[in-house]
Amino acid sequence: MGKPAQIVDANRLKSFCIQVFEKLGVAPSDAQIASDVLVSADLRGVDSHGVARLSRYYVKYLKQGMVPARFETQIVHETPTTAVMDGGAGLGLVVAHRAMELAIAKARKHYVGFVAVRNSTHYGMAGYYAMMALKHDMIGISSTNAKAIVLPTLGRDPMLGTNPISIAVPAGQERPFVLDMATSIVPQGKLEVYERLGKPIPLGWATDEKGQLTTDTSRALKNVIERRGGGLLPLGGLGEEMGGHKGYGLAVAVDIFSGMLSGAAYLALTDPVDKTGRPLPSNLGHFFGAFRVDGFRPLSEFKAGMDDLIRRLRDSSKMKGASRIYIHGEKEFETAEQRRRKGIPLNPKVVLDLQNIAKELRLPAPF
Amino acid sequence: MGKPAQIVDANRLKSFCIQVFEKLGVAPSDAQIASDVLVSADLRGVDSHGVARLSRYYVKYLKQGMVPARFETQIVHETPTTAVMDGGAGLGLVVAHRAMELAIAKARKHYVGFVAVRNSTHYGMAGYYAMMALKHDMIGISSTNAKAIVLPTLGRDPMLGTNPISIAVPAGQERPFVLDMATSIVPQGKLEVYERLGKPIPLGWATDEKGQLTTDTSRALKNVIERRGGGLLPLGGLGEEMGGHKGYGLAVAVDIFSGMLSGAAYLALTDPVDKTGRPLPSNLGHFFGAFRVDGFRPLSEFKAGMDDLIRRLRDSSKMKGASRIYIHGEKEFETAEQRRRKGIPLNPKVVLDLQNIAKELRLPAPF
Repeated sequence: MGKPAQIVDANRLKSFCIQVFEKLGVAPSDAQIASDVLVSADLRGVDSHGVARLSRYYVKYLKQGMVPARFETQIVHETPTTAVMDGGAGLGLVVAHRAMELAIAKARKHYVGFVAVRNSTHYGMAGYYAMMALKHDMIGISSTNAKAIVLPTLGRDPMLGTNPISIAVPAGQERPFVLDMATSIVPQGKLEVYERLGKPIPLGWATDEKGQLTTDTSRALKNVIERRGGGLLPLGGLGEEMGGHKGYGLAVAVDIFSGMLSGAAYLALTDPVDKTGRPLPSNLGHFFGAFRVDGFRPLSEFKAGMDDLIRRLRDSSKMKGASRIYIHGEKEFETAEQRRRKGIPLNPKVVLDLQNIAKELRLPAPF
Repeated sequence: MGKPAQIVDANRLKSFCIQVFEKLGVAPSDAQIASDVLVSADLRGVDSHGVARLSRYYVKYLKQGMVPARFETQIVHETPTTAVMDGGAGLGLVVAHRAMELAIAKARKHYVGFVAVRNSTHYGMAGYYAMMALKHDMIGISSTNAKAIVLPTLGRDPMLGTNPISIAVPAGQERPFVLDMATSIVPQGKLEVYERLGKPIPLGWATDEKGQLTTDTSRALKNVIERRGGGLLPLGGLGEEMGGHKGYGLAVAVDIFSGMLSGAAYLALTDPVDKTGRPLPSNLGHFFGAFRVDGFRPLSEFKAGMDDLIRRLRDSSKMKGASRIYIHGEKEFETAEQRRRKGIPLNPKVVLDLQNIAKELRLPAPF
């Protein structure tokens, strides 16, 4: 399967990202945050949302000026428990971090806090922001809309983003519960992985431009990227028999909270281009929430209960051939522990990408 | 296909339900609410959650004393924005109504309000409570845990309820968006429908007691009811390929909000039985939320945006052979309008059930 992965130290990778962002004019504190979000994704094994996207998303946007290096977020409406933030078309990674901090600050005072964001850009791994609540003994929620590449049930054209939902819940002795899921069966990054491996995708993930299910990875990916009709299917798949209307409904709900409550773009209005095809600011919307656990129940009781819930699931009887029942986030925590110790394996194409960025920006070679 | 349905007037059906509840000792105002929830389900075409369950759930529980006719709900913990309510093991239909009213009252003052409920019982159609927020120009949220009949990914034994999520969002000229979905592919009631029709279920909905996918409706239903191993599959299906771990994760998240934040039973601890197999109070947990739209965005702007979102989805291009793209709740609103005018078609078995209840309770025949 080609060249082996290169193992890279997480701190070193993060330092490199910081240098890149700073060189492109991003403020040092913002560069720090953006890099932490990206490398956290690589640490957790969510490689599709990590440094693999540094050149293709963030560097490109900054260089094109679609994302200004220096930007201001602004609170355009606020109550004690709610707010709408304008992201100033800035780096979604940084905008989202600020918005989640505001939600947490509101929850600290008022037990719950919610912030809807408009005029933002791609924010990376949804789970990062939900997990920010954990150290405050809060439940965190994070969601975003995105470029429309997902079909509504019975629809032929993509109208929805992969619109992820993340929910992070603290536990006691056990690791937190961290759900972080696209509301489509798979995100675009999964098609990219299959493309790199030269493997056909399973029947059921995507349709071709005629609306037929397809296993043709390149064709599905091309349709998705170029929006030529066809697209990814919502969780539950094609039609209603296996619940496709439910995944579709969750994606719409995410768009309502992220895009509509905030006043951002929604549906296929996100990621517009001008007449020449040049991308305009994507005007994505996000939604963040924080719930203080002790607004409901004494924290120690809740954490003991979470431990029990997690253990009962883990210890329940397994399907034939299955060795383990996972709790959400568990695989990622294990991967992060391992990668923090042993380093992050980077795909050779990603390594080359990072080396090219370094050359172009006249930075020392990263590895 | 047996006897045709009997068409019954909605008001008449509701009056009958009220009489039944009152005869069983339920307070008149509670009887009113419980009946409205049930008949609303029938009106909306969610027949599985309507009067079809009057004898099998509510009358049975009241007669067994598992649900006391007179009960008190109590607020056991409260902040301005959050509360935990003890349902007094009372009728879930009434407990849930009170809890959602409290969430709405909190949101009126503080823009958002959340109420977790413990020590409750089966609450019927999740969407009823979420929709209570609509007339206050709020977004409503409702969820509940339930008897464990759903398998975790790679698990053999049911550990989770069908744990529905409902989200209701007001629109302007258009009908509200109302998502109301079990986090399993189908709820138990869907198997019951297939059983009545003598039809095999599609491969993918449920496993037999050995953990194999099955199309044997009776066997799947029996396994589910008697908890003999096997069960319903989470949204996304068996394994992870089509995203089964996502449906499983959503079901756990619902259990955390409904069961764990409230201090109710969770996982397979709900619906316990004593040594003789007699059911004990089910100690279900619910979770309700209300968001004032104007905590984020001017209401008129938001409603106009929702109208646009709904129309864009409806008008987007359709799959070959599809005549219409639905928005969530739309089918149900149309059914309700029709049934309010023309009456509710009741399955002959349900009619017989209701007639038997009348006889038993010495009430005038309902139809």
